[in-house]
Amino acid sequence: MTSRHYRRPGPGLAPGRTPTPSEASIRYTRIVQGACLFLTLTAGWLSHLFSVYLTQEQSEAPTVDVSSLVSSVWCHTGSSGEKLCKFRNICYDPWFQEFQFTMSEESIVFGIRNPEQWKDIDMSTVLDHNAFKMKVSIMSPENKIKQNRAQVLMDPTFIIHRFKPDNIMHVIHDELIPLLFTMESVSEKDFDGKQFSLAFTDDHNISTLDKWYDHFSKSPIIKLPYISETICFANAYVGMHKSTLWFDYGFKKYHGPYINRNFHVNGLKKFVKYSLSVWKSKPIFTCSLETQCVKVVVVSREQSRRILNLKTLYSAIEEAHQKSYKSYGLEIVTIDLARHDISFVLTELNQATLVVGMHGAAMILSLFMPPSSAIVELFPYAINPDNVSFLKALFQQREVYPLYYEFWRNKNIGDSRPGTHADPLMGKISHLSEELQNIIMSMTEVPPVQCCHSPAYLYYMYHDTYVQESVEQPILNALLRTQSHSPHPSLLSKHIFPASPSFLNCTFEGQELSVAWGESSNPEENENLWFQLTMLNDDIIKVVNATDSLSREFWMKLSTPIKSFQLWFQPFSGKDRSGHLTHQNCTKSR
Amino acid sequence: MTSRHYRRPGPGLAPGRTPTPSEASIRYTRIVQGACLFLTLTAGWLSHLFSVYLTQEQSEAPTVDVSSLVSSVWCHTGSSGEKLCKFRNICYDPWFQEFQFTMSEESIVFGIRNPEQWKDIDMSTVLDHNAFKMKVSIMSPENKIKQNRAQVLMDPTFIIHRFKPDNIMHVIHDELIPLLFTMESVSEKDFDGKQFSLAFTDDHNISTLDKWYDHFSKSPIIKLPYISETICFANAYVGMHKSTLWFDYGFKKYHGPYINRNFHVNGLKKFVKYSLSVWKSKPIFTCSLETQCVKVVVVSREQSRRILNLKTLYSAIEEAHQKSYKSYGLEIVTIDLARHDISFVLTELNQATLVVGMHGAAMILSLFMPPSSAIVELFPYAINPDNVSFLKALFQQREVYPLYYEFWRNKNIGDSRPGTHADPLMGKISHLSEELQNIIMSMTEVPPVQCCHSPAYLYYMYHDTYVQESVEQPILNALLRTQSHSPHPSLLSKHIFPASPSFLNCTFEGQELSVAWGESSNPEENENLWFQLTMLNDDIIKVVNATDSLSREFWMKLSTPIKSFQLWFQPFSGKDRSGHLTHQNCTKSR
Repeated sequence: MTSRHYRRPGPGLAPGRTPTPSEASIRYTRIVQGACLFLTLTAGWLSHLFSVYLTQEQSEAPTVDVSSLVSSVWCHTGSSGEKLCKFRNICYDPWFQEFQFTMSEESIVFGIRNPEQWKDIDMSTVLDHNAFKMKVSIMSPENKIKQNRAQVLMDPTFIIHRFKPDNIMHVIHDELIPLLFTMESVSEKDFDGKQFSLAFTDDHNISTLDKWYDHFSKSPIIKLPYISETICFANAYVGMHKSTLWFDYGFKKYHGPYINRNFHVNGLKKFVKYSLSVWKSKPIFTCSLETQCVKVVVVSREQSRRILNLKTLYSAIEEAHQKSYKSYGLEIVTIDLARHDISFVLTELNQATLVVGMHGAAMILSLFMPPSSAIVELFPYAINPDNVSFLKALFQQREVYPLYYEFWRNKNIGDSRPGTHADPLMGKISHLSEELQNIIMSMTEVPPVQCCHSPAYLYYMYHDTYVQESVEQPILNALLRTQSHSPHPSLLSKHIFPASPSFLNCTFEGQELSVAWGESSNPEENENLWFQLTMLNDDIIKVVNATDSLSREFWMKLSTPIKSFQLWFQPFSGKDRSGHLTHQNCTKSR
Repeated sequence: MTSRHYRRPGPGLAPGRTPTPSEASIRYTRIVQGACLFLTLTAGWLSHLFSVYLTQEQSEAPTVDVSSLVSSVWCHTGSSGEKLCKFRNICYDPWFQEFQFTMSEESIVFGIRNPEQWKDIDMSTVLDHNAFKMKVSIMSPENKIKQNRAQVLMDPTFIIHRFKPDNIMHVIHDELIPLLFTMESVSEKDFDGKQFSLAFTDDHNISTLDKWYDHFSKSPIIKLPYISETICFANAYVGMHKSTLWFDYGFKKYHGPYINRNFHVNGLKKFVKYSLSVWKSKPIFTCSLETQCVKVVVVSREQSRRILNLKTLYSAIEEAHQKSYKSYGLEIVTIDLARHDISFVLTELNQATLVVGMHGAAMILSLFMPPSSAIVELFPYAINPDNVSFLKALFQQREVYPLYYEFWRNKNIGDSRPGTHADPLMGKISHLSEELQNIIMSMTEVPPVQCCHSPAYLYYMYHDTYVQESVEQPILNALLRTQSHSPHPSLLSKHIFPASPSFLNCTFEGQELSVAWGESSNPEENENLWFQLTMLNDDIIKVVNATDSLSREFWMKLSTPIKSFQLWFQPFSGKDRSGHLTHQNCTKSR
């Protein structure tokens, strides 16, 4: 019997795969062979720099004989067809960079029917992108025996592959909201950040945004590409709900709004509520509508897609304030994610009446504004909000999020300045043919694009902008809308139906039949309540609609004596909202 | 503001609904109004007789202001289309005999899209029976406020409606196996009976079989029809997987095998394993094949469908034993569920080589026999096993359960004796017209029937039987089959596919390209392993199949120098089992 681990060229490094600089320094090694246990921490351990370590709690996780583990899996399907899987006893082998499923005759494999479906488990929510499938190897317990021992983590753990963890919009849209929504769907209590651990299969570098993820993991996050010995998860969840997605990055189709038929806006609200509970600090001085003060947050970009005349923007805000909230104070706060900490940013946004900013990832944070506040999103020349704005997609298309949205486009090429970046991905076009450069430069609007390398799109998207005075109009409109509290559609009205009566009593005697029923528990929620009584007297069916919802009884005399009598009873609200159908065999009156 | 509770005619009794004698005695009352708390236990409290009480733990459950509760629900769909729902903060109101869902704008309602779907949540697994739908009333938080306070149970609780809890076949097939399968699918560890509580909405009388359910509930089972004050469940599961069902009782179609396309036989095995761990006692004297002894268990029925000449049956068993296991001992044990306790019955069955018995509910316990043992099921005159036998449906149709099945039919009307029961549901036909009686009595085989009142079916099903010597043949066949250990289909072979290589390395130089790849983790499980390499050299695609699974490298010289080169790599097993497709951008050799 051979052990593959003996044949490793080095701890956790596969030949043909170049270690990144971070790998070289942060690798920790735990070598356990047979009954003999070594615990080796490499000298390069820099736990303060990276979250790639196991907690004290986890490092005390049992090191068990892996051959005794039998894997099982249960997958369900989410509302967009995504697989949501729960694994028991699945291991990650860093040598093969794969998950290993030990299949014995005792395994339960639910919701995966064939090898093709095994290869179709998404570790990311990004739509139509095939690079984030879970890589699983199925093996027999006899094969697994050769693997000696491994650590087993008992904590239920969500394992995901992040898409763009250095971009706050992607972090929130692609991972944090879907994670919270999925965690709540399997958790036995309201999400409090203490139910699950997190593990990543991506090998993205660390970013200042990593701390957002930390609040979704009860213990330090495990980065699987950097572990050196097999880890087994007693309970792992793979796959996230796509019900909270509203934007499509344009793989195989155009970048733009995702028409999500089963969109769950409450997933966004739960995320906001949870994040505020985690991040929000007590503000020292509060300016909000409650204190007769209008707070306007300007989201600033200092590296690219800049506003070159911020003063004009501030003046426009002041003018609009004078025309809408004259008797209120005004506070303009400029925030920049690169400079301000999350706590400050979220606290400010959570009191703001208005957010103004150039289109960009940071604008996703307007989710944290209080209900009935407003957003004005600014766009560089030739960029159409309908194609690129994840905010417009959410706030206008859906009409379910209680914020008001306005936008302003730079329509004047003279107010637009190309960026100065040397990277085609940051809008450089000088490496293209002159003809192509001319075509791009003569455009007045960039058409919808697929992800991710359209030079025209990137060129204009990275232009800086001089805003014009015309920006005042959408700002004023936005402020005025915050003064009208238009109702937004109710979940209750979509689902409500009349409840059944507390009792149903039917009797007959001679030619007379009578029916009485009790009150129901939700008459206030149902307008135009009425009841349908279907009576079967031997072979004769009579259908009666009782429309006086208060009387709750019905009496009838037939032309012939009644021998037997059955009743079906159903409450209705309005034209076609019906409650449960109740059946009763009626008795002869005493 | 009125409280409905003041208007109750009596604690928990709705007008028009007659209390059963058990209700009158066992009702317990907990009245909590406003901030004032009374704890009243009625004098008729007989906790030793009924499991309708709350444990100490549960009676200390918080009594909270119900108006603060917001409900949520997540429903998934099982493989037969059944809804599997998890509720947060759902209350049962005994006055309205309904579940109450408090819907605020914060509620999450996932997997239920409209009022019709709210009315279609099954509380039972019985196929095509519409009487066990969950009765839900949706209400606004404003309405809920009127309800004052209620107990909140924090334990995750499965709420089910039992179908026939006095029949062991129904208990196991309809509830216990589906419950365990569903509990495992949502639990964070292997099922040990301590994860979940149970609550019933049915009002069936207590039965000797109730103790089977007790092992599926961490705390005493709550019978909702008998509670007197609202109980709220912080976490409730409603709906059970139908993946383990194999028999259809014939509502809307014929009684008979259920062709379950996604049958999960491992759900049955887990149930057997768990039940044995709970019930099995240490046998004092063991007779089993390991101790060179053939144990034959005869399942006896003493009230109906009796064998009138058991001696003939015993002789046939002895004869068959002489012809198959002559050198082994023989022990014949007769068990009767009405007389023997579960522990004894399961321990005996778990050592048996053969079970023989007249068709009936108790025969379901043959699930507890060891692998490769056998069953002979006996049938009264005119009864066709294909139509009525849940054992034949399982063991013959599926060929997945590792037991052997044989049957014997009484083909001789002279050996059949009508039952003497005075109930048409127990086979009485004397109340029918003479013509109909004659038709029934002249039948030689009862055709397939729908549930549940076919007089011909019931008439013959309740006949007693004199077995003939011909019963020896199936008994001998069964014993002989236990000597051949034919393999049964493997889960692994259905799912296995070749894993990806541990690394993939491709380089080019001049006109030469070379590819090398690592070993994979499951070569032993995959026969005829080969690899497909798809190479894109500028615009030229080459596809090469590498069939020597040991060489793990490929070299090629092209007619023109290579400028760029991409590789797709996919492992295959046999003709069409493929692994993950891997893509690589190849590098220029140094």
